[in-house]
Amino acid sequence: MATQRSENPTELKEEKIAIIGSGQIGGSWALLFASAGYQVALYDIIPDHVTRTLELLLDQLHTQSRDGLLRGTLAVEEQFGRIRGMQDLGECVTGAVWVQECVPEDLELKKQVLKEVDQHSSLDTIIVSSTSSILPSDLSRHLKHKDKFLVVHPTNPPSCSRVVELVPAPWTAAETLTRAQSLMKAIGQSPITLKKEIPGFILNRMQFAIMAESYRLVKGGFLSPDGVNKTLSAGLGRRYAFLGPFQTAHLNAEGFGSYCERYADTILRVQQSFGAPQQMGGALAEHIQEEMAKEVPLDKLGEARRRREAKMAALAKFKEDLDAVKL
Amino acid sequence: MATQRSENPTELKEEKIAIIGSGQIGGSWALLFASAGYQVALYDIIPDHVTRTLELLLDQLHTQSRDGLLRGTLAVEEQFGRIRGMQDLGECVTGAVWVQECVPEDLELKKQVLKEVDQHSSLDTIIVSSTSSILPSDLSRHLKHKDKFLVVHPTNPPSCSRVVELVPAPWTAAETLTRAQSLMKAIGQSPITLKKEIPGFILNRMQFAIMAESYRLVKGGFLSPDGVNKTLSAGLGRRYAFLGPFQTAHLNAEGFGSYCERYADTILRVQQSFGAPQQMGGALAEHIQEEMAKEVPLDKLGEARRRREAKMAALAKFKEDLDAVKL
Repeated sequence: MATQRSENPTELKEEKIAIIGSGQIGGSWALLFASAGYQVALYDIIPDHVTRTLELLLDQLHTQSRDGLLRGTLAVEEQFGRIRGMQDLGECVTGAVWVQECVPEDLELKKQVLKEVDQHSSLDTIIVSSTSSILPSDLSRHLKHKDKFLVVHPTNPPSCSRVVELVPAPWTAAETLTRAQSLMKAIGQSPITLKKEIPGFILNRMQFAIMAESYRLVKGGFLSPDGVNKTLSAGLGRRYAFLGPFQTAHLNAEGFGSYCERYADTILRVQQSFGAPQQMGGALAEHIQEEMAKEVPLDKLGEARRRREAKMAALAKFKEDLDAVKL
Repeated sequence: MATQRSENPTELKEEKIAIIGSGQIGGSWALLFASAGYQVALYDIIPDHVTRTLELLLDQLHTQSRDGLLRGTLAVEEQFGRIRGMQDLGECVTGAVWVQECVPEDLELKKQVLKEVDQHSSLDTIIVSSTSSILPSDLSRHLKHKDKFLVVHPTNPPSCSRVVELVPAPWTAAETLTRAQSLMKAIGQSPITLKKEIPGFILNRMQFAIMAESYRLVKGGFLSPDGVNKTLSAGLGRRYAFLGPFQTAHLNAEGFGSYCERYADTILRVQQSFGAPQQMGGALAEHIQEEMAKEVPLDKLGEARRRREAKMAALAKFKEDLDAVKL
């Protein structure tokens, strides 16, 4: 699968990006910024984790290169050479134009880390959390530079899905959002900017709406877990790979207004039948896991993730060609 | 786009399929059955509609052929030659192994048509409604052959999305479901079989869960209609083109059980924040339509639908190749 395309050469940039936390998300961000030529400083409270992550990133770059999926035009060694492991948070943050916090999903931990970042930030530093589930206001209320704070939440896996959600706190400056949009575009991501914060942001609200209904359908005995998966992957998902919900509705009637006239009552009735929110877990979760493990056993998850990423990268390339044709 | 593949030659079959109603759905079903070699009898209460539909179907076959998207191995003329317009419902149904009702989405009209179909059915005839929103029990309660009745609901557009939902009424015989699954597979569709009926079935419950949340997000001022579309088409939709919700969760943690442990509380909290069901329409629907019309004006919907179908057909071909690689 060769997806390298003719493009302008990636320029090496002076600007420094700080990544705090060297887990999977931190590592993915490091690669994204490095592939666009930025200087990346990578810090973790456990120094060994940085060392280990750097090794993994080099492996990932080689794999991307082998599969023709390397982003930008810099060679593997050039991209890897842009990333430096750091021993000290203050040193990592000092002089950075953008600090991407990627520590585990724990409010108190994130607040503590962001407070330290805040102390070492300059007036120009944009301070970003990668959180998927904590509201920006809860993370940034007490920061000195809270007008420079926002959440930038990537889609998983970030290396091959370009959508990122930009979520402002009530005090995030308009200029901070504009700069964040520009930087995300500069590294090849597609920013979706929320006008204000909401629990779960957009991606997870959509995803959890589907998950909630999927879980209720299996719990209610209407369909097997496999049937639910197939409904998305062989049915709706193919449409959603090209068209969002409003575009689909617009085409499925004589425009969105006529869609509402035709289907609003049905949609309301179905919504009213959705039933109560579910706490997922227990025996039903075990049953679903057993069903999923028939296809991908727990000890093969890593391989399945790599195949998923390769497929999604191939789809991205395929869609780029098709999207050149106007809707 | 040549997607014709080497395959076994399609055999001409003796079995007769009756299609009642010659609108878009009826026409699509006629083509699907004809491409698999069945004899198709097409009836509409307005004879002119049959004549007009036959002309459209011939056009569609020529377009499919030109784009390399013709199903099966029969030539355009052979496929078209399998379809006969009928002037009389009784004659159309008599001797059919399968009757597909495709009249407008109106309970009383469908009941009336199904009653007539019932009178002309033999003991072996499977009686099917294409309804997307009426429960099978409401349609078939009074039929003589109600054990032979089920709903088979196609994905739109049926010509390029293979998923069909099979929805039994409480009295549908197990053998009827088994025969319906076999016939759907024989014409190249992917049946998803519900264990019992539920409003909206599966596809529309999923679709309306997304639509409901999309509409609330725009209504609440969190995001533009375009942002909602992009969240699906550039983000989640790419994943769902390969993986259903449970498969995604299984891979995004150390199996589905670990996913629930990690995210169940967040998912519950987000579900609890979804807010009340919405009756879609009015000024907000107009606003969304105006936004959608910037991309596809109302007088260009037909062209956009054709481009969508071509893209989805190309994706189907692309996915066939990728799906050959195990998850």
